[in-house]
Amino acid sequence: MLTLSCPDRVGVIAEVAGLLAGHGGWILEASHHSDAESGRFFMRQEVKADSLPFDADGLRQAFEPVAARFEMDWQVTDTGVPKKMVVLVSKQEHCLYDLLARWHSAELEVDLAAVISNHDVLRGVVEWHGAPYHQLPVDPDNKAQHFDEIGALLGKIQPDCVVLARYMQVLPEWLCREYAGRIINIHHSFLPSFAGARPYHQAYERGVKLIGATCHYVTADLDAGPIIEQDVVRIDHSDSPEDYVRYGKDVERTVLARGVRLHLEDRVLRNGNRTVVFD
Amino acid sequence: MLTLSCPDRVGVIAEVAGLLAGHGGWILEASHHSDAESGRFFMRQEVKADSLPFDADGLRQAFEPVAARFEMDWQVTDTGVPKKMVVLVSKQEHCLYDLLARWHSAELEVDLAAVISNHDVLRGVVEWHGAPYHQLPVDPDNKAQHFDEIGALLGKIQPDCVVLARYMQVLPEWLCREYAGRIINIHHSFLPSFAGARPYHQAYERGVKLIGATCHYVTADLDAGPIIEQDVVRIDHSDSPEDYVRYGKDVERTVLARGVRLHLEDRVLRNGNRTVVFD
Amino acid sequence: MLTLSCPDRVGVIAEVAGLLAGHGGWILEASHHSDAESGRFFMRQEVKADSLPFDADGLRQAFEPVAARFEMDWQVTDTGVPKKMVVLVSKQEHCLYDLLARWHSAELEVDLAAVISNHDVLRGVVEWHGAPYHQLPVDPDNKAQHFDEIGALLGKIQPDCVVLARYMQVLPEWLCREYAGRIINIHHSFLPSFAGARPYHQAYERGVKLIGATCHYVTADLDAGPIIEQDVVRIDHSDSPEDYVRYGKDVERTVLARGVRLHLEDRVLRNGNRTVVFD
Amino acid sequence: MLTLSCPDRVGVIAEVAGLLAGHGGWILEASHHSDAESGRFFMRQEVKADSLPFDADGLRQAFEPVAARFEMDWQVTDTGVPKKMVVLVSKQEHCLYDLLARWHSAELEVDLAAVISNHDVLRGVVEWHGAPYHQLPVDPDNKAQHFDEIGALLGKIQPDCVVLARYMQVLPEWLCREYAGRIINIHHSFLPSFAGARPYHQAYERGVKLIGATCHYVTADLDAGPIIEQDVVRIDHSDSPEDYVRYGKDVERTVLARGVRLHLEDRVLRNGNRTVVFD
Repeated sequence: MLTLSCPDRVGVIAEVAGLLAGHGGWILEASHHSDAESGRFFMRQEVKADSLPFDADGLRQAFEPVAARFEMDWQVTDTGVPKKMVVLVSKQEHCLYDLLARWHSAELEVDLAAVISNHDVLRGVVEWHGAPYHQLPVDPDNKAQHFDEIGALLGKIQPDCVVLARYMQVLPEWLCREYAGRIINIHHSFLPSFAGARPYHQAYERGVKLIGATCHYVTADLDAGPIIEQDVVRIDHSDSPEDYVRYGKDVERTVLARGVRLHLEDRVLRNGNRTVVFD
Repeated sequence: MLTLSCPDRVGVIAEVAGLLAGHGGWILEASHHSDAESGRFFMRQEVKADSLPFDADGLRQAFEPVAARFEMDWQVTDTGVPKKMVVLVSKQEHCLYDLLARWHSAELEVDLAAVISNHDVLRGVVEWHGAPYHQLPVDPDNKAQHFDEIGALLGKIQPDCVVLARYMQVLPEWLCREYAGRIINIHHSFLPSFAGARPYHQAYERGVKLIGATCHYVTADLDAGPIIEQDVVRIDHSDSPEDYVRYGKDVERTVLARGVRLHLEDRVLRNGNRTVVFD
Repeated sequence: MLTLSCPDRVGVIAEVAGLLAGHGGWILEASHHSDAESGRFFMRQEVKADSLPFDADGLRQAFEPVAARFEMDWQVTDTGVPKKMVVLVSKQEHCLYDLLARWHSAELEVDLAAVISNHDVLRGVVEWHGAPYHQLPVDPDNKAQHFDEIGALLGKIQPDCVVLARYMQVLPEWLCREYAGRIINIHHSFLPSFAGARPYHQAYERGVKLIGATCHYVTADLDAGPIIEQDVVRIDHSDSPEDYVRYGKDVERTVLARGVRLHLEDRVLRNGNRTVVFD
Repeated sequence: MLTLSCPDRVGVIAEVAGLLAGHGGWILEASHHSDAESGRFFMRQEVKADSLPFDADGLRQAFEPVAARFEMDWQVTDTGVPKKMVVLVSKQEHCLYDLLARWHSAELEVDLAAVISNHDVLRGVVEWHGAPYHQLPVDPDNKAQHFDEIGALLGKIQPDCVVLARYMQVLPEWLCREYAGRIINIHHSFLPSFAGARPYHQAYERGVKLIGATCHYVTADLDAGPIIEQDVVRIDHSDSPEDYVRYGKDVERTVLARGVRLHLEDRVLRNGNRTVVFD
């Protein structure tokens, strides 16, 4: 899998496709996007692994000169190696449950390296599924320690993806930066509406007719990172804030699962604070 | 048609339904809502006109004592008398066109009393359809006069519904107040996101994955009145702000038409800054 | 909770509401529907239990004469008593998992009396959640025995709701009849399109642009019973039948859960082969 | 604009992109699809016209050898030349109105060469918009003459797109064949459900919870041609078949307009009875 972005100019596709074809590379899926505003070009090429005469490292070496010439931000990943995922939760179970179910049924082919929580209530279901559970309590007077412990654990695991599955703590800036582009959050509103706390209650107060959920990359700016996926569901005047919460859970689950999958399949490329999603 | 709201208590439905049944009233459609938060009760009763031994005025008289006893906000309208509608536009034609088409095909059974615009470009299509067109230009240095003229015209017409069909001027507070609950706007975003100017460009900058439109009652608070109807459409990274505008038009048209119909059929009851919509 | 249907005529609402009000009944939610085609009237009244001077049986007794006079099909249920649910599955886990999660988190307040399967693979997750699991194998040459065993088990449990959560066997007519209006199936297509086997592959062959799922009551007529709920999801040319299956699972889960909830809350009334859904 | 399909093999993208880049071609939008089932490869390349040293004919000549080598079905169109469109209608106006509005506002940049109808009722609105209107009456006992006249008119115009905008006649096989891949119909159901007559009434009888519309290419097989676009809208038990018709019109309009645009921009490639839609 090859993904890249670079300043747009004549010949980028020809050059990349030519290099792959020259080595017999069978392209399974090719996606491109020229961003008129930023003048950048984005590409994702999924190549049948055994059609090339070398492995991921070989491809990296072969590609290096082209990448340099076109000033590319690029990466090659081996789709044969499952990505490493860590899930952070608090007490709410619906998003975690959903991810566990998709992992358990092999719908989500990922190495679930750890579930981390500041509580112990979800240990049972996680361990029953065979994933490691780490309880790292938060001391409200010294949150720094909690995040140091998380940082240490992540440092050991080196995850490709850290999912905040309704984890209720705000990550410190240093963590956001260290894992920039790898931390995915699900926010229970259709952002940018109702950022912050109790979004369903905010939505109820405002009287909107649809509520939603947003899956986005986490940045130091709360609820303001690049959006990967969103969806909404219709509610009406007969629904209470509690009903919103219930309907919303279904949207949260689905939107988070889609976002995680898109990220794991290298289908999300950042374009400033926006995303290019080759789905 | 009877619509009402009152403090919730035992026996409201029994009392109203009993009164109607006592006079032989055949209920075509009955809708109720108890709002737990505000403690108010909302009701809409559509009665077959010729099943009652009196007309709308007679029903008003018969109902008066009940209404007083239960401290009701209420109104009786005669569904046989078409409502009066005025449409305000600027230069953009898509919402006006859509309303004209629905009116022309009798989908929207309303008395289209006037189309008012600060420009002349839409006169042709309006007059071809047989509706009166009034051009009332805006002097940027003296907008007050424009609104006085609108006020005078509305005063003569006494409309049940004033539709801002992409009318680009902000109405003065006195007009909003005078026609409170009767002025309907279409805003080209999924409010409360992207209130104010150029919402599609704001949406593009933020990188949302769905864009929308909101039909709401106009209050003195810009883009913050009670919402009647909303909807969204999916966009992706390949769409430019111009594409957003194009997709958005389809949503605007549909959402506005739905909102106008709901209002004309007395299906929208205000509950503070929220609405109860009996659709 | 009172639900009923009867021939439509003047005074039904007044009579029922009057009776409830006469005993001090506080109506939490009242829904009505007059079906113009069949001439039948449908009603659902949710009454605050402790506002009445009697229990469900008392209400039944008090209501009997009214019901007789208006030739009503009616039932009174005590919302304080959880309904009994049985789930039938085969090997596919996504719908079962979802129901277990909702039950486990108390989103679905029901007495999960049994999970029955012809296989053993899902025993672990069911028993971990604390629900009884019954494996009743199917002998392809003698399916009758399997269904006799199911019938015997259901006879003991007397469930209010039997959910076919991707249970792959066709129920015999006698079972469909015995539990008419209580057996709910999830079919993985937007019925009536693609009834029968392998609907996602049928959808792929036909080249539709949306796929869906349908939750319906089971009748002796395969995939043709009254529909409770449906939904769809957009697919495109880049999706394979396997992708359809994956997207479809999300729709199946959500549609089934909505349908089961609507049924358990007595919100679904049958109108011939159609349903009135008071949601 | 270059669109093509061919048997999938290594090097197609490289070859095409290489040829374009060799002549300085600036690719505005590039889309590809490998169909695993049929083993065919599909491509659409939108090239900035003035970046090439030749016109559409020059590109055709330059491309010929590559096309032959890879056994391509291909076409080059000049996006600077508006396509020719003919619209066939009967008496229903909503789809025609919508297309006229989009054409009039230049949202749809097309040469509207003719509107043909078997009735005269829509002449006014068409001629007001400045498009030629042809009434060609149908003699129920001799429909052949009607279609001969249509055939003659189309023969003179040579349209790129013939839109059946709720035209109620079934086209003869010879016309379908002569304009294969150029005739677009809007059917007022979510096909394959409810093909044929009165689909909204069929939908009502079946009790579905969503109704829809389908835009598809016309083939000799009624309502069974390749689907371009579909969408649905939610209805409930309170809606009559007449309400279905009204809601449905909104979906028909939008789905037809999307389908026509996709076709006019050469975004729809046929893959057997399925379509590849590069939107």
